[in-house]
Amino acid sequence: MEEASARKPRVVIIGGGFGGLEAAKKLACADLRLTVIDRTNYHLFQPLLYQVATAALSPADIAAPIRGVLSKCRNVEVMLTEVESVDVNAKKVKLSDGDVDYDYLIVATGARHSYFGHPEWERFAPGLKSLEDAVEIRRRILMAFEYAERTSDEAARKAAMTFVVVGGGPTGVEMAGAIAEIARYTLSKDFRHIDPSQARVILVESEPKVLASYPDDLRDSAMKQLADLGVEVRTGIHATNLTDQGLQVGDEFIPCRVKIWAAGNNASFVGKSLGVPIDRVGRVMVNNDLTIPGHPEVQVIGDLANFPFQTGQPLPGVSPVAMQQGRHAARNILMMIEGDQPQRFWYFDKGSMATIGRNKAVADLKLVHLSGIPAWLAWLFIHVLFLVGFRNRLAVLFQWAWAYFSFSKGARLITRNFQSEQRPPA
Amino acid sequence: MEEASARKPRVVIIGGGFGGLEAAKKLACADLRLTVIDRTNYHLFQPLLYQVATAALSPADIAAPIRGVLSKCRNVEVMLTEVESVDVNAKKVKLSDGDVDYDYLIVATGARHSYFGHPEWERFAPGLKSLEDAVEIRRRILMAFEYAERTSDEAARKAAMTFVVVGGGPTGVEMAGAIAEIARYTLSKDFRHIDPSQARVILVESEPKVLASYPDDLRDSAMKQLADLGVEVRTGIHATNLTDQGLQVGDEFIPCRVKIWAAGNNASFVGKSLGVPIDRVGRVMVNNDLTIPGHPEVQVIGDLANFPFQTGQPLPGVSPVAMQQGRHAARNILMMIEGDQPQRFWYFDKGSMATIGRNKAVADLKLVHLSGIPAWLAWLFIHVLFLVGFRNRLAVLFQWAWAYFSFSKGARLITRNFQSEQRPPA
Repeated sequence: MEEASARKPRVVIIGGGFGGLEAAKKLACADLRLTVIDRTNYHLFQPLLYQVATAALSPADIAAPIRGVLSKCRNVEVMLTEVESVDVNAKKVKLSDGDVDYDYLIVATGARHSYFGHPEWERFAPGLKSLEDAVEIRRRILMAFEYAERTSDEAARKAAMTFVVVGGGPTGVEMAGAIAEIARYTLSKDFRHIDPSQARVILVESEPKVLASYPDDLRDSAMKQLADLGVEVRTGIHATNLTDQGLQVGDEFIPCRVKIWAAGNNASFVGKSLGVPIDRVGRVMVNNDLTIPGHPEVQVIGDLANFPFQTGQPLPGVSPVAMQQGRHAARNILMMIEGDQPQRFWYFDKGSMATIGRNKAVADLKLVHLSGIPAWLAWLFIHVLFLVGFRNRLAVLFQWAWAYFSFSKGARLITRNFQSEQRPPA
Repeated sequence: MEEASARKPRVVIIGGGFGGLEAAKKLACADLRLTVIDRTNYHLFQPLLYQVATAALSPADIAAPIRGVLSKCRNVEVMLTEVESVDVNAKKVKLSDGDVDYDYLIVATGARHSYFGHPEWERFAPGLKSLEDAVEIRRRILMAFEYAERTSDEAARKAAMTFVVVGGGPTGVEMAGAIAEIARYTLSKDFRHIDPSQARVILVESEPKVLASYPDDLRDSAMKQLADLGVEVRTGIHATNLTDQGLQVGDEFIPCRVKIWAAGNNASFVGKSLGVPIDRVGRVMVNNDLTIPGHPEVQVIGDLANFPFQTGQPLPGVSPVAMQQGRHAARNILMMIEGDQPQRFWYFDKGSMATIGRNKAVADLKLVHLSGIPAWLAWLFIHVLFLVGFRNRLAVLFQWAWAYFSFSKGARLITRNFQSEQRPPA
């Protein structure tokens, strides 16, 4: 039994995000040995991370334990560990605590936010990629209101009630809209010395309009819907400096306590170790079948891959691309095991959507462009449908329904690190 | 308007736990100015904290923002800050960032776990008082299984699969039972190199039986129900040393990775600053009307108070005592404002219950003692009923129902501190 299974091809997937998990589901229970490596123990539904950062959902609502998702098939092994690099010649993945050999490899390690050569800005303006990021941003937003309530310094209070989001892509638009909603509705009656609805939310975008990847009419609509929510959208300007005290845009210094970074991504460092060409932001230049040059047994998918064969541009870093590539890469492996060639990948674009707030969204469904309530309902429907795991889907629906009818957000917790709250007895 | 309100008596409540929040609810909207001070922004439903620590519930499920609970009455102000001490002569509460004057004061700052003169043990064996504690314990429990799955060192694996809970009160019993259930049911199919159901759970108690405050028949029943779940109950022994590697009890050293402390409490340091007699564990010796000697305008309630007038013993540190005292203290203040004397406090004991696991519990309802399923159903009913806030109650019910029928726990997340997961690009 052991020996028979030792002769089966060994497939390793690095990364349990949308791409990696789709590939894993397709390969689970097939006649091979499958190892999934991730540095967290959960799959994260990243499109809803901004709702954790703005106190609408709890971390566990948008995360599913990877082991739980894949536990049914006994040929699947999940490893919680850090990948250091890949040795494509030796067919080995180097881990922080050992090596793993593979016959076929899928690399799906994604991207993190990047600060255009200013890594020191991260401390002042966290990005939004992990649950830890989201809980930290939630803490900062809620603490800013608490600070404003307690301080007697008028300038400090103004800075605490000014929230700046850098970057007008979907994440930036969703964050800005959600912060404005918290201030206008959720917290409106909670304070005595400040009026949270007077908070300023500023969205900074270097292009002339937000949502660069959307059709022009929806970009206009998004600008208008943001303005309706009271978000100040500043377009055509760059953040040139970022400090504890605030943010420099053009000639103006905006004093603000909470800054959120949604402006750029860098692909995971694992891509570099493959030894094949990468682009300016670290994405691997894959072949049109998702394999890498010279190594058909290695495929790269999702945010880590630059796939320019369909539109001339890299495919966008969104979950549908990653999921379709994950399924395709899994199929390629099953074909290669049978002795066939890997096939060319085609992305089927069903459209994209971004939510701005209650009843506010834009949806580009290709055949039709939606704005406002219809777009928002479409967004709601799709996101509930795609949430991983039956339990999470119901829990999220419940919390959304509650939030919609009560204007309240349930996860308004300011939590700190373990032991930081303890103080020595006097 | 401002002037009129400035002449109203000012009531300050320190602590937003069960006692403080009950008092606040009773005084909210009365003809006085009310200030509630807490160092977190939420009221915590502490009896369910062990369910966060064992991945059944999310932090937000058992916490309600204090501002939200009290936002309706405009005369209530909530301060998120740290109390340093109370100056009873100047009628001032000293904060880390200022002072607050009071006419009437309720001190309800509770207790933290204590390590019998070994504060260095806390690092190795966290207690369970705050959300941060609970999330840290959850991380340690889940990481122990991950470590056991990856290690090739047989002794290290055994130590990682040994969980020790020190202290056989309700919290210790609940923790031990819940860890045993996770291992036997929730995680049973998740690993490939270990069998989680082989995990050892050891409960150490210095008395001859667990649940010292319960009637003898229920203590026996709890011992039996724990044994049914596979928990090894070691009674009549003390932990004499505690290290990273394990725990010394009597002559035996038990190698174990995860240790949880549920053995003792020390009252909050704020009690000491009142300048009146305190007991061995720091509780304030209150008068029989909850006021402190010489200062009828100051009342102490909940876990911080030693109230020996009813049974000869201090009342137990449980939420019904704190809540009844909170309401009584509020009534006393309303009477004193009218020129009347504060009244003697009487605790009405409706009984107590502890849950051990699925269908397993004990309940001392005074007239009747329940064990097993009836006790467990009673426990469920009471806890859902008392959970603060409509939203949390429904969310918790939903998650419990899901967990009951699926044997699954939804919040199996290993989360780390912000930025600890980031690594420099290679």
